[in-house]
Amino acid sequence: MKTSKLAEGLKGSEIIKIAGEVNALKAKGETVYNQTIGDFDSSVFPIPKALKREIVEAYENDQTNYPTANGMEELRETVSSYLANRLGLRYTKDEILISGGARPLIYALYQTVLDLEDTVLYPVPSWNNDAYTYLARNKAVVVETKAKNKFMPTVEDIEPHVQDIALLALCSPLNPTGTTFDKETLLEISNLVITENERRKKEGQKPLYVLYDQIYWQLTYGETAHYNPVELNPDIREYTIFIDGISKAFASTGVRVGWAFGPSHVINKMKALLSHIGAWAPKAEQMAVASYLSQTETVSQYLGYIKQELHYRLKKFYDGFQDLKSQGFAVHAIEPEAALYLTVQFDLIGKTTVDGEQLNSIEEVTSYLLNEAKLAVVPFYAFGASRTSNWFRLSVGTSKKEEIDTIFDLLKKALENLS
Amino acid sequence: MKTSKLAEGLKGSEIIKIAGEVNALKAKGETVYNQTIGDFDSSVFPIPKALKREIVEAYENDQTNYPTANGMEELRETVSSYLANRLGLRYTKDEILISGGARPLIYALYQTVLDLEDTVLYPVPSWNNDAYTYLARNKAVVVETKAKNKFMPTVEDIEPHVQDIALLALCSPLNPTGTTFDKETLLEISNLVITENERRKKEGQKPLYVLYDQIYWQLTYGETAHYNPVELNPDIREYTIFIDGISKAFASTGVRVGWAFGPSHVINKMKALLSHIGAWAPKAEQMAVASYLSQTETVSQYLGYIKQELHYRLKKFYDGFQDLKSQGFAVHAIEPEAALYLTVQFDLIGKTTVDGEQLNSIEEVTSYLLNEAKLAVVPFYAFGASRTSNWFRLSVGTSKKEEIDTIFDLLKKALENLS
Repeated sequence: MKTSKLAEGLKGSEIIKIAGEVNALKAKGETVYNQTIGDFDSSVFPIPKALKREIVEAYENDQTNYPTANGMEELRETVSSYLANRLGLRYTKDEILISGGARPLIYALYQTVLDLEDTVLYPVPSWNNDAYTYLARNKAVVVETKAKNKFMPTVEDIEPHVQDIALLALCSPLNPTGTTFDKETLLEISNLVITENERRKKEGQKPLYVLYDQIYWQLTYGETAHYNPVELNPDIREYTIFIDGISKAFASTGVRVGWAFGPSHVINKMKALLSHIGAWAPKAEQMAVASYLSQTETVSQYLGYIKQELHYRLKKFYDGFQDLKSQGFAVHAIEPEAALYLTVQFDLIGKTTVDGEQLNSIEEVTSYLLNEAKLAVVPFYAFGASRTSNWFRLSVGTSKKEEIDTIFDLLKKALENLS
Repeated sequence: MKTSKLAEGLKGSEIIKIAGEVNALKAKGETVYNQTIGDFDSSVFPIPKALKREIVEAYENDQTNYPTANGMEELRETVSSYLANRLGLRYTKDEILISGGARPLIYALYQTVLDLEDTVLYPVPSWNNDAYTYLARNKAVVVETKAKNKFMPTVEDIEPHVQDIALLALCSPLNPTGTTFDKETLLEISNLVITENERRKKEGQKPLYVLYDQIYWQLTYGETAHYNPVELNPDIREYTIFIDGISKAFASTGVRVGWAFGPSHVINKMKALLSHIGAWAPKAEQMAVASYLSQTETVSQYLGYIKQELHYRLKKFYDGFQDLKSQGFAVHAIEPEAALYLTVQFDLIGKTTVDGEQLNSIEEVTSYLLNEAKLAVVPFYAFGASRTSNWFRLSVGTSKKEEIDTIFDLLKKALENLS
């Protein structure tokens, strides 16, 4: 044990293991359709031109010294207006905290509301809650969601544990599934939290907080609407901390500007913690995002464009899978609702390859798809689901439209070669 | 207790309290000479023009998606060469970790090498070690250094505790003092750590690590040389983690690019932790710093310029204090060696103002200087020294040359008004 127990116990990312296989194949000169990463190819999805211009201007204006600890006032004011105008949510600039992307805020929230002996409830598949729980040295109640519920948790999943938990970690639109809470489900869960907190208040206990990660909320398609707990029942406001930012809706994962908003007593503590961690967005980027987001028409145009581009790809992949399914192949997909992700099922365990080898595990299915169809996708166990779940995340942030037909040609051949 | 015990226990920054007083005075329309902040006024000290150009170009080249978890390879390679060329230190790109400034790296190092029951030794005055120790839930051995040692710790300060500690947190050039380790002192400390670790190795114990924060190393003046433990005794290499970056030497506090380097088994664990925290420098800034730092001549020119500008101010303040001292006023300063800081003594406790009020505490001395001389400086207790220490940090990063004479006129008057 050369470092701390905490550091020694950190698990390697399952996605990074798959990335290793992808890179090994690429190193052999193979073309790989890498749909594993929750990121964009910036040659396909550049950031908004107007945002780029604002960043350049901020640097030209020497916005280069320390930003304020909770984020530049200009940006917090813009975010406040943006939330009011686009979501009808009323948060003042002092209830908003800026950080270098959304991750530092999630980390800080866990550390801010959870004591060592506390328990977090999170559904799986979901993104990285296992790591945040581990780093806060907490216990977890892990609820595995069901395909029939579009992999979203329900009030029935949560209710049996509600008295035992200190944090409920929710995300909608959900990474990895690209699905969303419907209004009724989210309202039921919100009401459950409110009722539980009325009880805790009477007994003088620490409240049950809700982490509501809505980083993908601007990327919804078709009839899908994004809901949040506070609009459905305002009584949950004092227990809800939202995670949000520019990373996904503006293809700006590498620009590192995110924000949290919620009750000021939690936001202020998160600010104090993050000041020490120093996980700030650069001042120039903060000033630039402040200017950019207040350009209502320009922003709406960009959102229209990126949504169309992402949805086109998601729909094309979805249609491709439904087509294969109708031909009798053991695949299935959930209709895309939001984000960059398609949820796909490959029911291939037990099948035999042309080499006479049987696919005995999801790892082997993943490798088969990669090696035979050159298609890289992430199995849900990488997001905490059980090792036997045969569902996968397919991300389109790096997808070129003209490649999709080729992918399905290869995939069909690979499926035909299984018996 | 509405949030976690950890969050509730976070102390407010003493510097921020003083900033509050400064702002209150400014709000009344007063001119304040605010020498409290360890930052730059970017209108006085802009970042290098060539760095600015590189950032703009990186954005034009769409460097906007996720950076790699340990930092862009281009930047890690440049840092590797930079360390070899300018410090004679040999670290490969895999022994270097990039982050969004230096703070996340310090936080990560504490979390990576310290278990809950461990003890950190840090000297005071020093910057923020108390907070990092608190956040790692550790115990501390705090050593108060002496003016006669330029406030640097000595081997005699550390030796009695060496068997009890898991981390030795050192910084040179030191924030807040602007002083540096001399070669002999640092060598003695390094040898002590090596000897202790030979013992621990035999007994199979976790080693004693050294955090060596050298963020100010490029800002040394006159005859002052910067030393580091590894050049003085290479046997300490596997226990030493350096903290470094562009923030101070390139007036780039708001650009948020820092790096750590050290043994790969520690660096890799810090990387894993920081991936979850997400405290990354934006990809564009990383690519830009990679290009900029490889422009040897341009970089050297900028360093020559900023050192001259900072040293001019430090020397002028120093001469001013020595002049007041020679006139019999109860002030003293330590000759500036490095960084942005001058260490100044105001021996004013017990003195009486024209209003007949006695200055009974360092807080009252600080307020007197602020209100009467319009000079804002930070008492060493804000850096963990004892409440009775009458030494202060004076920062010149926001100082305009033409103001310094005025400051001394006001200061002299304020001192004359004390009896």
